[in-house]
Amino acid sequence: MIESNVEEVERIFDTAPFIADLGLKLESVSLGECRTRLTITKRHLQQDGFIHAGVLAAIADHTAGAAGSTMVGKGQAVLTAEFKINFLNAAQGSHLSCMAKVLKPGKVLTVVESELFCGSMESPRLVSKATVTLAIVKRRGN
Amino acid sequence: MIESNVEEVERIFDTAPFIADLGLKLESVSLGECRTRLTITKRHLQQDGFIHAGVLAAIADHTAGAAGSTMVGKGQAVLTAEFKINFLNAAQGSHLSCMAKVLKPGKVLTVVESELFCGSMESPRLVSKATVTLAIVKRRGN
Amino acid sequence: MIESNVEEVERIFDTAPFIADLGLKLESVSLGECRTRLTITKRHLQQDGFIHAGVLAAIADHTAGAAGSTMVGKGQAVLTAEFKINFLNAAQGSHLSCMAKVLKPGKVLTVVESELFCGSMESPRLVSKATVTLAIVKRRGN
Amino acid sequence: MIESNVEEVERIFDTAPFIADLGLKLESVSLGECRTRLTITKRHLQQDGFIHAGVLAAIADHTAGAAGSTMVGKGQAVLTAEFKINFLNAAQGSHLSCMAKVLKPGKVLTVVESELFCGSMESPRLVSKATVTLAIVKRRGN
Repeated sequence: MIESNVEEVERIFDTAPFIADLGLKLESVSLGECRTRLTITKRHLQQDGFIHAGVLAAIADHTAGAAGSTMVGKGQAVLTAEFKINFLNAAQGSHLSCMAKVLKPGKVLTVVESELFCGSMESPRLVSKATVTLAIVKRRGN
Repeated sequence: MIESNVEEVERIFDTAPFIADLGLKLESVSLGECRTRLTITKRHLQQDGFIHAGVLAAIADHTAGAAGSTMVGKGQAVLTAEFKINFLNAAQGSHLSCMAKVLKPGKVLTVVESELFCGSMESPRLVSKATVTLAIVKRRGN
Repeated sequence: MIESNVEEVERIFDTAPFIADLGLKLESVSLGECRTRLTITKRHLQQDGFIHAGVLAAIADHTAGAAGSTMVGKGQAVLTAEFKINFLNAAQGSHLSCMAKVLKPGKVLTVVESELFCGSMESPRLVSKATVTLAIVKRRGN
Repeated sequence: MIESNVEEVERIFDTAPFIADLGLKLESVSLGECRTRLTITKRHLQQDGFIHAGVLAAIADHTAGAAGSTMVGKGQAVLTAEFKINFLNAAQGSHLSCMAKVLKPGKVLTVVESELFCGSMESPRLVSKATVTLAIVKRRGN
């Protein structure tokens, strides 16, 4: 992973107000992969006590963006063109973790898959999976 | 729209902590339709100053759930099974509004489309569109 | 619609062996829109006598591609990057028609929606709806 | 895999006219998994000589349905509720193979992923990936 990509992943996590507000933490990053985690609090929930689908979607999208950013050229960034997410199991627990992997890097579009696991730290289970299409754009300010 | 459905839509907006936290407001609701709006603040943004895709997705999903809830039977609720969202234009502006309409109501699954408009109150433009598949389930506590 | 786009739509219908094989006919085309129709025969069906989801998907995709082609520049063509399709009602009947409309034209990506109607010529009903993301590419041979 | 499921998978392949017409062959089936293959001929192509996206989608859907059918109860069948497919690489070659795996079996909905590989028998490459949501229904005639 080139220096420029490390900087871009850090920028994505350090300067996105919504992500800081949610409390999402970057756990690890390597070429084509990114892991994040969130400590669940009451504010992340919907009306029945489950984690809101919008929280899961936001994390799947942001982690996918970071994974995709590890493979772009210097001066490039990614922007989500579209995503699709399936909710597989009721999302409840103290922690949420997300693992995003690039399925197909490209010059114009990059496709990333994000898996979300939920539960205790010891026994997470897959609660959601997303497929994210990223458009590769010029980095702003470059 | 039966009394039971009015109650369910109110419950979805009044008791979902993430939605209160985001600041999403219910604007209107009728059979098979729901409109919501959000006043954009800095915390809704991503790293380049646009509204975060996760905010758009959360609003598209929640408003779709409310629209779908207007058509379920007594004692029933909806749960998002999956959704797909396309980001069409850069989302910037002071206000965001969402219009969700049921495309196909069903006994097991209901399909809803959500359109998100952004900009000033006077000249909104379509920034995003989602298709949401809702599963119809028993209301908890019933 | 410029001459170059008319030629491209004709090329898409006249030179695609799978489309000729399916029996799909171009009904009309205008800027950002395309309509097609298919006379249903036994070979289009799945195991329970309904039109196969793959037939619906193929028609939604191809008609979307034609609609998107009406808005590209000279020397350009479209290629499907991804699509999502919902099956709303059992697809049965003597005729299938598809109406595709560009939701958002773009320089890199164009998003199109396709609706599929089925039944008799007199009383068609919506059986399926797709959202198709097209990548704009150089036309081969140009 | 119970006897009833073996019968259902065979029925899906033996009695679907569109699948016989396409030339799709069942290669193997086990609990939660199905593999199929197709010998590519000119009729499967689109206007630029690639395999038509509709052919890829049809195969992804049908193979997913067979994989999902291995996990339903006696007297049950599956029906595709929706799917999303990404086209990752140009699909060209003499053979196409599809591998579908159940991601999450359920009583009402089952989610399956299908991967499509293309090229020569010796060096296939991933050309497409789909996520398919199946609704579980009563088998017709039961």
